[in-house]
Amino acid sequence: MLSEKVDYDLILVRYGELSLKSRYVRRYFENMLVRNIKNVFRRHGLSCRVEREWGRIYVFTDNVSSGVDLLRRVFGVVSVSPAFRTVSSMDSVSKLAVGVSKKFLCGDMSFAVRVTRTGCHVFTSRDVAVRVGRDVAAVTGARVDLDRPDFELFIEVRDDVSFLFTEKIVCVGGLPVGTQGRVLVLVDSFYSILAAWYMMRRGCDVVFVVVDDSFLSCLDSFLSKWNMESKIISANVSCRVDLYSMLDRFFLDEGCDAIVTGYSMYMHSDDVLSSIMLLKKHVGHLFLHPLICFDREMMDQKLREIGVLV
Amino acid sequence: MLSEKVDYDLILVRYGELSLKSRYVRRYFENMLVRNIKNVFRRHGLSCRVEREWGRIYVFTDNVSSGVDLLRRVFGVVSVSPAFRTVSSMDSVSKLAVGVSKKFLCGDMSFAVRVTRTGCHVFTSRDVAVRVGRDVAAVTGARVDLDRPDFELFIEVRDDVSFLFTEKIVCVGGLPVGTQGRVLVLVDSFYSILAAWYMMRRGCDVVFVVVDDSFLSCLDSFLSKWNMESKIISANVSCRVDLYSMLDRFFLDEGCDAIVTGYSMYMHSDDVLSSIMLLKKHVGHLFLHPLICFDREMMDQKLREIGVLV
Repeated sequence: MLSEKVDYDLILVRYGELSLKSRYVRRYFENMLVRNIKNVFRRHGLSCRVEREWGRIYVFTDNVSSGVDLLRRVFGVVSVSPAFRTVSSMDSVSKLAVGVSKKFLCGDMSFAVRVTRTGCHVFTSRDVAVRVGRDVAAVTGARVDLDRPDFELFIEVRDDVSFLFTEKIVCVGGLPVGTQGRVLVLVDSFYSILAAWYMMRRGCDVVFVVVDDSFLSCLDSFLSKWNMESKIISANVSCRVDLYSMLDRFFLDEGCDAIVTGYSMYMHSDDVLSSIMLLKKHVGHLFLHPLICFDREMMDQKLREIGVLV
Repeated sequence: MLSEKVDYDLILVRYGELSLKSRYVRRYFENMLVRNIKNVFRRHGLSCRVEREWGRIYVFTDNVSSGVDLLRRVFGVVSVSPAFRTVSSMDSVSKLAVGVSKKFLCGDMSFAVRVTRTGCHVFTSRDVAVRVGRDVAAVTGARVDLDRPDFELFIEVRDDVSFLFTEKIVCVGGLPVGTQGRVLVLVDSFYSILAAWYMMRRGCDVVFVVVDDSFLSCLDSFLSKWNMESKIISANVSCRVDLYSMLDRFFLDEGCDAIVTGYSMYMHSDDVLSSIMLLKKHVGHLFLHPLICFDREMMDQKLREIGVLV
């Protein structure tokens, strides 16, 4: 839905969950997120300058549209808005709003102005909304409709700087990769890749152990889609016991915290718990089975969502 | 959406997933599902007679409306339809359809007739749809609209017996409880109850170990809502190590296949993997953490859906 009609100044990046954490942990998570964002932009040859303040990251790039597309798939990013920036005066905010609205609005449309404000100013949020609403209506001929507008203008006045945007684009959410340890994912079905995706979304670095090379091309396209540079180990084993001892070794070699499978109850065999127990018996480390309670429909739908199944 | 306007003959019960299984396993699962359905009806003092055929269960009860309400929350039931039954002749099917439609339809509404047929008959599905459509239109004055009808009439012709229904009510789905082993759930937060719900939905019998009596009332109301008669063990322990040894004992005493927690990454502590590892170190059995990749929003929403949070 990103409009191509206008040249945005920057991208507002929102991240969630971190508000639960202490200041110290939060700073660590933010650093990781900024690092991941910069890496993704660099890998795609896009310019990227990041500014940040409490609870918010601002990304400046030459290509906002492509930047938004990348940010959609950065774990930890909850939503983004391509935005304009100006100084926090009534005149300049209104001038910007009118300029932007002229590109989007015409006489038979309705619009609403939503204002939030933090800091110390001589005007209130309501003052801004009233003034901008009046000016935009006068220039475009559009009418104000606060309940079901065709078009919304969001204005955030933050101390000396104000931001204006027209859409919030939902992104993948979760936690920045690298904040939650490292896991070894046993790839023996497409569902393993889904399990890996869920672990990445919860902030884990992932190392893949692929037992059948036919999964490699799928895994490659998955990783490139999600902009991940994970290590892939090909383990062509002749029997399960060999696999178990290999898993054991890879786990230690790679300094992992857990081994992850794509197993779910009732998919793999009539008695999944016994199979898992067998695995556990042979490999002493911590196992996680994030899909254990998923049913097939949920998994297939999610695999399509993340671009593994088509 | 169950209409109170008519007296239904029976409830059609659909269950999924089982089609993946061998005939033998499928029969075992069906038996378990029928047993669970009968138990729930008996516990609520509702009459219940069950007939079944390949892939379908028919429940006859004096109170179809209450029966549907119970079946919504029986694990393994994918959807239900309150339905009418008649012999598979054009005349009787059409007569029934006209009788039912008169209660629901009036002249300014549109309707569609959807017919499926299995078995050997002198007419096709299309013949039935055409005849019923014509008769219903003639009597009610409503018009046929196959694309966006106000009202749908579903007719299933199955050998000698035909069924007619007007809605499919989505139920909880999953697998019949009792088909997938027995798990011990450590209740140390509301999320543990959610984890238990997911395990039940995948067919597991659940035994609860409650470490804090303040969860008991919530657990009671959860179990009664979902019609489960699970064992609850109160374990008031002074330290974690006591808890670990108790879990070990309960696991063996109760003949469990796994210990389940409601742990998720980033909820419990900054380093959930380490906490899980600690648990694992002290208790030798198989652990499952079905919520490990859930974020808080997903969990809270699901808790509300299953009636634990309000």
